[in-house]
Amino acid sequence: MRLVVVGAGGRMGRELMRAVLDNADCTLAGAIEREGSPLLGQDAGTLSGLAPCGVNVTDDPLPLFASAQGVLDFTSPAASVEFVALAAQARLVHVIGTTGFADADLARIQAAARHAVVVRSGNMSLGVNLLAALVRQAATALPGFDLEILEMHHRHKVDAPSGTALLLGEAAAEGREVALGDVSVRSRDGHTGARVPGSIGFATLRGGSVIGEHSVILAGEGERIVLSHAAGDRAIFARGAVHAALWARGRNPGQYSMTDVLGLADPVR
Amino acid sequence: MRLVVVGAGGRMGRELMRAVLDNADCTLAGAIEREGSPLLGQDAGTLSGLAPCGVNVTDDPLPLFASAQGVLDFTSPAASVEFVALAAQARLVHVIGTTGFADADLARIQAAARHAVVVRSGNMSLGVNLLAALVRQAATALPGFDLEILEMHHRHKVDAPSGTALLLGEAAAEGREVALGDVSVRSRDGHTGARVPGSIGFATLRGGSVIGEHSVILAGEGERIVLSHAAGDRAIFARGAVHAALWARGRNPGQYSMTDVLGLADPVR
Amino acid sequence: MRLVVVGAGGRMGRELMRAVLDNADCTLAGAIEREGSPLLGQDAGTLSGLAPCGVNVTDDPLPLFASAQGVLDFTSPAASVEFVALAAQARLVHVIGTTGFADADLARIQAAARHAVVVRSGNMSLGVNLLAALVRQAATALPGFDLEILEMHHRHKVDAPSGTALLLGEAAAEGREVALGDVSVRSRDGHTGARVPGSIGFATLRGGSVIGEHSVILAGEGERIVLSHAAGDRAIFARGAVHAALWARGRNPGQYSMTDVLGLADPVR
Amino acid sequence: MRLVVVGAGGRMGRELMRAVLDNADCTLAGAIEREGSPLLGQDAGTLSGLAPCGVNVTDDPLPLFASAQGVLDFTSPAASVEFVALAAQARLVHVIGTTGFADADLARIQAAARHAVVVRSGNMSLGVNLLAALVRQAATALPGFDLEILEMHHRHKVDAPSGTALLLGEAAAEGREVALGDVSVRSRDGHTGARVPGSIGFATLRGGSVIGEHSVILAGEGERIVLSHAAGDRAIFARGAVHAALWARGRNPGQYSMTDVLGLADPVR
Repeated sequence: MRLVVVGAGGRMGRELMRAVLDNADCTLAGAIEREGSPLLGQDAGTLSGLAPCGVNVTDDPLPLFASAQGVLDFTSPAASVEFVALAAQARLVHVIGTTGFADADLARIQAAARHAVVVRSGNMSLGVNLLAALVRQAATALPGFDLEILEMHHRHKVDAPSGTALLLGEAAAEGREVALGDVSVRSRDGHTGARVPGSIGFATLRGGSVIGEHSVILAGEGERIVLSHAAGDRAIFARGAVHAALWARGRNPGQYSMTDVLGLADPVR
Repeated sequence: MRLVVVGAGGRMGRELMRAVLDNADCTLAGAIEREGSPLLGQDAGTLSGLAPCGVNVTDDPLPLFASAQGVLDFTSPAASVEFVALAAQARLVHVIGTTGFADADLARIQAAARHAVVVRSGNMSLGVNLLAALVRQAATALPGFDLEILEMHHRHKVDAPSGTALLLGEAAAEGREVALGDVSVRSRDGHTGARVPGSIGFATLRGGSVIGEHSVILAGEGERIVLSHAAGDRAIFARGAVHAALWARGRNPGQYSMTDVLGLADPVR
Repeated sequence: MRLVVVGAGGRMGRELMRAVLDNADCTLAGAIEREGSPLLGQDAGTLSGLAPCGVNVTDDPLPLFASAQGVLDFTSPAASVEFVALAAQARLVHVIGTTGFADADLARIQAAARHAVVVRSGNMSLGVNLLAALVRQAATALPGFDLEILEMHHRHKVDAPSGTALLLGEAAAEGREVALGDVSVRSRDGHTGARVPGSIGFATLRGGSVIGEHSVILAGEGERIVLSHAAGDRAIFARGAVHAALWARGRNPGQYSMTDVLGLADPVR
Repeated sequence: MRLVVVGAGGRMGRELMRAVLDNADCTLAGAIEREGSPLLGQDAGTLSGLAPCGVNVTDDPLPLFASAQGVLDFTSPAASVEFVALAAQARLVHVIGTTGFADADLARIQAAARHAVVVRSGNMSLGVNLLAALVRQAATALPGFDLEILEMHHRHKVDAPSGTALLLGEAAAEGREVALGDVSVRSRDGHTGARVPGSIGFATLRGGSVIGEHSVILAGEGERIVLSHAAGDRAIFARGAVHAALWARGRNPGQYSMTDVLGLADPVR
C-alpha cells in the first residue's frame, strides 16, 4: 500500500515515516511539510533516523495524492480538514490521529467520509482501543462499582486529564448509559464530602519521561478490578496508524474508529 | 428466597450465612453440619458473628431441603455430590463453590442438572468472573501480545498457581483457541531461553495476609495491558454465591456458570 | 504491661481493645467512655467482638490511670489534651493516634511530655512510618526526580488528600529541604502548564471499601521508583499503637514519634 | 572529564558514547573496538545516532588511555580484566558495568584497584541502587514481614531471575543478616506447602519489550509495602556510568559501588 505522511517533519510525522518504512506491507509514497519549512528537500529516511530512502520532503500534496493509496495525518485541525477534502477527492484512505477538532471541523470530515474511507481516533494504539472496549463492558457488568480513571504522563504535558483518559471516561459513561459531563469529578482537594454514587473520578500524575499510562479502576465492596495500559514507546501510535490504513484499504466509504479496526465494535455492544 | 447453607461451621459456611442474613432479598432457611459436629444446635447468627437469628445448626438436610428454595455449598467434592442429588430431587437451586472435583463427580453434577438448576464456579466473585471474560477477549484481539498471569496470596496457601490463576489461564487459552496445557509455562528459573511465542506464563507470590490478587498481563512491542483483580474480603465469594442463587431462581434446569450469572456469556463469545 | 483504652466504644477503640486482648505482652486494665454513653457497664471483650474479658466500660479514668502503665487514645483533640494531663500526672505512657490538633493543643501535649512518655503519630502503622522514612531518603538521593503522591480510600472518605498522604508529602519535603506548602500541587485539571520543577503533586482516588493505599512516585528521565503501602485491615493501626506502648515503657520522658519506635530516626537523618 | 568508551560498537557501547556526548561535563576522548571489527574508522557520533563528532573508532587503547581520565566499560569479563590493568597503569578511573565475573577475575580487579579508582556495579542505574539501599533498611525494620521479589523483562531475556533481582535479594538478605542462598525460593509450582518464615521468594515475568521492572514486596499481617523500579530506557545505565565517572574523579584508589556514588553507604548500614 502506497502511503503519504503529512506533517512529515514533526515528532509524530517522523514516527509515521519510520513505521511505514519498517513495514513490509506498505511503501512510503511521499512526505509533506508546509510551504517554507526548512526541511523541504531532505530525505525522509534520514529525517526519521533510518538510512536514506530516496523520498524527499515536498510541500505540494496534489501529485503525491494522485498516485498514493493512503494518507497518515497527525497534524492540526486546520491542516487535517484541508487534507481530508483532498484525500476524499483522490479516493484515498485517510487515517487521522489529529485531536482538538471543533464541531464544524468534524462536520467537514463527516462530509468527506461520504466519498472516501476515513479512520479517525484520538489514540491510535491497539492497546488503548481494546482497553476502552473492555472498560465499557466492565462498567455495564458491575453497575454498583465505583469508577475511577488515573493517568500519568511526562513532566512536559500541559493539560489534564489526558485525551485518552477522557476517551476511557466516555467508554465508561457509555457502558453506564450516562453522559460523562454529568457524572465526572475532575479533581479532589479539601472537604469533598463522600463519593457521589455513579460518579466517574479522574486523577492525574505528572513526572519524568512517562509516555502515557492509564488505569481504570472499578472498586466495589471488598473487591476491585483495574484495567490498565502503559505505552513504552511513541512508535505504537504510528504502528497503529499504519495498521489502520492497511485494514481500511478497499472498505466502503465512511468514517471508522480504531474499535472497528480491532473488530471489537459488534461483539462489545 | 429461602436458602440453606451446608458446611455451616466452616470458614466459608459462616461467610455464606452472614451474606444470607445481610441480604434483604433472602432468608436463612437452615444451617447444616456433619453428624457429630460440636456445633450442632448452635445459633447460625452467633456462629457467623452477628446477632442470634433463631436458626440452629442441624445434621439432617431432608426436612430443610423440603421447605427451602436454594442451597449454598462450599464443602468438599464428596459432600457436594451427595447434596447435588438431594437438591435436584427437591428441585432446589444448588450453588456450588466447591473445587477439586474428579471427572466422575462432574458427571454426577451434570446428571443432577438435568432436573434442577446448578450454578457452579471455582471462584464466585463477580469481579473475577468478569475479569475472565475480559481476558478471553483481550487474548483474541491482541494475538501477538505475550500473555502472563501473576497471582499473590497469603503465606498459608499451600499450592501454586491458584485455582483462579488457572481459571484465568483457561480463559486466555480459550481466547487464543489453544489448550492451556500445551502452552503454559508454570515457572522460570535459571537458563530458560527466550520466551516461546504463544506461551502463557505463570508467576506466584506468597506473603502476609493477602486474600487474593490476580493480574493478567498482555505485553506487546512498546505497550502493555494489565487486567487485574484484588479481593479485599472473603465475603465477596459468599455475596457472589447469594447473587447467583437469586439470579438462578426460576431458570430452566441446567448447569450454569458465573459468566452466565453476569450476563457475559453471549457478547463475549 | 497494663493498658487502658479511652474512647472504648468507637471503631478504633474497639480495635485497640482487641489488639490489647490479642497480645500476650499486655493486659487490658480498663476501658473508658464518656459520661452518659449507653455502652457504660458493657464488657470490653464482647464490645470488641471477642469473648467476655471481665473488664467493663466505665466513665471515670482516675482509678484506672492510678493502677495502669499506659493509655491508648484515638479520641478527639479536646479529649486527648485532657487525657494527656491526667496520664502525665500518673506517669503513664500515653500513645496518641488522635489527629487534628490545634497549635495550643500541641503545646499542652508538649508540656505533659516533660513529665511522661508520649508517643504521637497521625498514622500508627509500622509500614506507613517506615515508608515515610524511605521517602525522605529517596527525595534527598534523587534531587532531580519528580515527586508525586497518590492515595486511594473508600467511598465514604470526605476529605482529600488523606492525612497520611500529607505525612508522606512532609517526609518528601523534609528530604528536599523545602516547605511542603511552598511546593505542593494539590490537584490538576484543565490547562495546567508544564510541571514546575521541584513541585510535589498529589492525586486522589476514591472508591469501594479500600482501607488505605498510598504511593510515592519518583519519576526521572527514563526511570521511575515507586514506594507504596497498602493497608488491608484497620487492626494494623491498633497493633502499631500497642507496639508503641510496649516500646515506650521505661523510656525517658519526652514526645516520641513512630519513627523513633521503629528505630529509624538516626540512620535516616 | 575526558572519557574513553570500550566495546564502542555494542548496544551499550553506543549508549555510553551518546551519554558522554550529551553531557556537558565530559568529552569523548576515544572509542575502542576489538581488532578486526568492521566498525573501525567509523565516526563515534554517527554510530551512536548523533551528528558526527570527529572521534573515530580504533583498536589500540594505549595512546587513548595515555591522554584520557576515565574509561567506561560494559564489555565481557575477559576484556574487562585486561582493560582494568591498563587503566590502573594509566591511573584512569575505570567504570565497569560488565557482569558475570569469575572469582579470579574479581581478584584481578581488586588488585588493580590498589592503584586506581574502580567503580563496579551489576546495575548502573541510580534508581536501582537507591532501591537496593531502601530494601536493605526495610528488611531490617520489618523483620516479621514476608519478602518477595518480582521482576519483568522483555521476551528475549534468556535467564531468570535477573541479575538485578538477585542484587535486590542480596540487599534484603543483608538487611536480615542471612545468606540469600540459604533462604531463597526461586520458583513455586504445584504443592509447595505453606510459606517458610524468613524465606525470600522470586517470581519472574517475561513479555513484550519491557526493559526492566523490579518490585520488592514486604507483606505483613494486614499491610504491605512495595518498593519498585521501572526502567523505561536503556540510556539510564549509560547515564549512571557517566555520573559514576564524574563522581570518581580525584577519589582515593579503591573499588567503589554505585551505593558509594549515591552517598548511601553510611547512613544505611
